[in-house]
Amino acid sequence: MNYTEIIGFIAAILTTAAFLPQVYKTWKTKDVSSLSFPMLLLFFVGVLMWLIYGFLKHSTPIIFANTITIVSIFLLVSFKIRYNKK
Amino acid sequence: MNYTEIIGFIAAILTTAAFLPQVYKTWKTKDVSSLSFPMLLLFFVGVLMWLIYGFLKHSTPIIFANTITIVSIFLLVSFKIRYNKK
Repeated sequence: MNYTEIIGFIAAILTTAAFLPQVYKTWKTKDVSSLSFPMLLLFFVGVLMWLIYGFLKHSTPIIFANTITIVSIFLLVSFKIRYNKK
Repeated sequence: MNYTEIIGFIAAILTTAAFLPQVYKTWKTKDVSSLSFPMLLLFFVGVLMWLIYGFLKHSTPIIFANTITIVSIFLLVSFKIRYNKK
């Protein structure tokens, strides 16, 4: 693995890890008031496209990051739908 | 531009555009209660690393997306700091 891929992996770890405190906070507080629903939906479709791009480019960091991110976004979308109703 | 780069550009547009409704909503409502601060900080550093990775990989979609995203995240971080104090 060359240094470019190492930087890619660090980037992937950070932007993937970034969603985890948000998922935890939202799950804990059930407060979704300031989360934008269009943001979550655009993100979900966008991350799906990045995943396809990563496969086509054979970029392991892009595939790795976006697989975990799409799960986090899916959880946030489901929290937003569930807790918004209350 | 081949179809891989077109998919990359669509992905870039979506994940970049995703932050705009969040920036607008936060700017409009001044409600930052459910936004996670560690999420924003990790995202900021992560997007910076993606930007470096994009330059090293000569990937126009990655550079394009992360330049605009880092501005959005910077705005959200500044909103979070400003409106959290009130």
